[in-house]
Amino acid sequence: MKSMKSKINTAPISGAQELLPNAQATFDQLKNKIAEVYQKHGFTSIETPSIERTEVLLAKAGGDTEKQIYKLVKTAESDDASTQALRFDHTVPLARYIVNHENDLTFPFKVSQIGLNFRGERAQKGRFREFYQCDIDVIGRETLPIAYDADVISTLLSAFHSFNLNTPILARINNRKILSGLLEALEISNHSEDIFSIIDHSEKVTPEKTKMDFEELGLKKETVKTLLSFIELNGERSFVIKELNNLEIENETFKEGVSELDQVLYLLESTEEKSEISADMKIVRGLDYYTGTVFEFILPEHKNIGSVCGGGRYENLTKFFSDKPFPGVGGSIGLTRLFYVLNEKALLEPTETSLIDYAIIPVSEHEFDESMNVAKKLRDKGHSTTIVFTDKKLGDKITYAAKLAKNGIVIGENEIGAETLSAKNFTTGETEVINVDVISNPEDFWAD
Amino acid sequence: MKSMKSKINTAPISGAQELLPNAQATFDQLKNKIAEVYQKHGFTSIETPSIERTEVLLAKAGGDTEKQIYKLVKTAESDDASTQALRFDHTVPLARYIVNHENDLTFPFKVSQIGLNFRGERAQKGRFREFYQCDIDVIGRETLPIAYDADVISTLLSAFHSFNLNTPILARINNRKILSGLLEALEISNHSEDIFSIIDHSEKVTPEKTKMDFEELGLKKETVKTLLSFIELNGERSFVIKELNNLEIENETFKEGVSELDQVLYLLESTEEKSEISADMKIVRGLDYYTGTVFEFILPEHKNIGSVCGGGRYENLTKFFSDKPFPGVGGSIGLTRLFYVLNEKALLEPTETSLIDYAIIPVSEHEFDESMNVAKKLRDKGHSTTIVFTDKKLGDKITYAAKLAKNGIVIGENEIGAETLSAKNFTTGETEVINVDVISNPEDFWAD
Repeated sequence: MKSMKSKINTAPISGAQELLPNAQATFDQLKNKIAEVYQKHGFTSIETPSIERTEVLLAKAGGDTEKQIYKLVKTAESDDASTQALRFDHTVPLARYIVNHENDLTFPFKVSQIGLNFRGERAQKGRFREFYQCDIDVIGRETLPIAYDADVISTLLSAFHSFNLNTPILARINNRKILSGLLEALEISNHSEDIFSIIDHSEKVTPEKTKMDFEELGLKKETVKTLLSFIELNGERSFVIKELNNLEIENETFKEGVSELDQVLYLLESTEEKSEISADMKIVRGLDYYTGTVFEFILPEHKNIGSVCGGGRYENLTKFFSDKPFPGVGGSIGLTRLFYVLNEKALLEPTETSLIDYAIIPVSEHEFDESMNVAKKLRDKGHSTTIVFTDKKLGDKITYAAKLAKNGIVIGENEIGAETLSAKNFTTGETEVINVDVISNPEDFWAD
Repeated sequence: MKSMKSKINTAPISGAQELLPNAQATFDQLKNKIAEVYQKHGFTSIETPSIERTEVLLAKAGGDTEKQIYKLVKTAESDDASTQALRFDHTVPLARYIVNHENDLTFPFKVSQIGLNFRGERAQKGRFREFYQCDIDVIGRETLPIAYDADVISTLLSAFHSFNLNTPILARINNRKILSGLLEALEISNHSEDIFSIIDHSEKVTPEKTKMDFEELGLKKETVKTLLSFIELNGERSFVIKELNNLEIENETFKEGVSELDQVLYLLESTEEKSEISADMKIVRGLDYYTGTVFEFILPEHKNIGSVCGGGRYENLTKFFSDKPFPGVGGSIGLTRLFYVLNEKALLEPTETSLIDYAIIPVSEHEFDESMNVAKKLRDKGHSTTIVFTDKKLGDKITYAAKLAKNGIVIGENEIGAETLSAKNFTTGETEVINVDVISNPEDFWAD
């Protein structure tokens, strides 16, 4: 029998987060803070099912998605399952939701989604197969003013401000129309896809490699030089916008991009620290559905972590499900990965959320009912409270209580019916007097 | 093109909850209240992965579980997936967690789990294939005092008290040792499984059918009569315990069950309304791993809904993964189903959680930056605030704002740099003066 039992591997599956209680409390705290910030900024929470029809998930797919999607096997009671799979992001389900519920929603629709997504990718350190993503999006019907791009970025910055990070954060912001317009003006739009991809990867390789990549496209020496100096352009709004205008590019797309970027940065400057915002021509975001604003957050003192948040503007969220245009702007915090790297680099200020306020320690079972009473009073006053019901020696009970709670309250026969009790802080040793005003139970249940 | 798009079904999968924003806000509120109550009662939150190795999930399985379990198909990048499945409850993953992390946990371990579970069962109204369950458990190492059974029931009752139900709640409580002992004393333990099952179903059939079912086991007429009158026994502690003692059953298991039931009810009486607690011999809970206390909550004015919460005591949570005994007691609120029935019967007091506190309405884009400023001030004071950035007529902006928010604040050129602003309540029409103390931006970005 023993050998059979020991055969079962009790570790969680590879690529999943499973935390001990204290770490879980910290994780939950970050998740709740994000939810609170999103709500405070006027984003309405929705939740779509984890399971979707595979055809919905693959409507826009291609590339990695199809390789990583978790499909389901039909069950004895549900044939449907064989046409279903686990969602891999919040964007596709949101598009389906918008099309399905269009007539019941108010546009622009400011929406948040916090939940698990699933990708069956190769196992590797710091990569997760099931992970929390915390998305916000603003979806317009037909049009959506550019100011919402600033609204989204400002909200995501506020989420990071709520985390008690001990390291700065930087929002790097760009607009894809600028590069698109530049390529049109340089008459190299036919290389557009390659050039976006080279720039997207330029921070992972040497400058020489990037130069070579451009040259290999067969671009003129002068053009390569222009591109290389263009992507180095970054900094504050006033500086970057001036430099872009100085390029004197006569192209409408380019001008539109510069103007949009200017507006987004200007609005952000009215509420955010200038040091946390940078225009940056290297930010293009590989995903091909972004059409205007794109952004990435990094921790500048820990650049090797890479992006900790990203997003942008898309022309039409729902193009795979509907002919109506729903332009949107959104961004996402990959919380499971973020939590992993923040812990690895010790970038979170420690908090003590995991401790219960009071542990009540009845000396014997004769004080159990009084302990229940006192616990109820404390909870009604807003304090988390637990009762140590174990039948151990008092010293062992106190040791146990000290592991769980900030304060301990011993209740023995002298405390029955008392109007005040002493709570001892386990860390400082200080004593606090608690008014309980407990109605004592006149019957002693365990008397006989 | 159009016909291709319209082929994709944009409804959520059958058996999944997908709510509109207002309903989602109410659902989230219930979920957060449960989490808060669990935390306040000293339960530590953990979260296990949604995906488990199939052998872990099926270690204790049989019956419906195997028919309903969602297995995964291997992905191009992960072969592992073909040996994995979605969890169908929180109990099996908790058992694995306890065995895997035993040395890092403090016992008794008071633990809560709130998350989605998955069962690919036949589609039917009010049944869900993915659904939230909100579990609490207390797990001991080797022993666990009976008082924790009262702790669990009291915590679950508090969760229901936090819901603003407009109908009473009743906790029906029993102890399986009482019936087991009675069957031993009557020397019909060989029919134990059948008798537990007949009693478990007795409320879904007529009393005549239950009588017939007992008779079909070949039981003596006198025995059938005893059983029929036994299962009718229910009510307050003092009455039920007296009646049970009056049966004068000379059996240790029986006596132990009566004593445990007495203690659990007594402790509950010290904090709960007597009208919400009933000892009830009809409660046996079909699941064969319960070994002592069993309980079910019902809404007595809506009995046809059935149980809205249930749980009990088990001798050994981890018996399929370890030889060490971990006795426990736990209970679960099936939130997705509960929310569905509470809405169907209109049993929730309406709340207005879905509305944002303030919508700021800039008259034109010249006031966008000032609006960002004011929104930040209001959020810093704790108010949820959104800004209407649409380029519509003022009247349309106000109409939009009134759908989302409790109060509207119009900001035109006269309000720029003002120290106070007027907020108008959309429902009452009343006006509130808001001190904003905004540092106005001297530059008018949109001037040229």
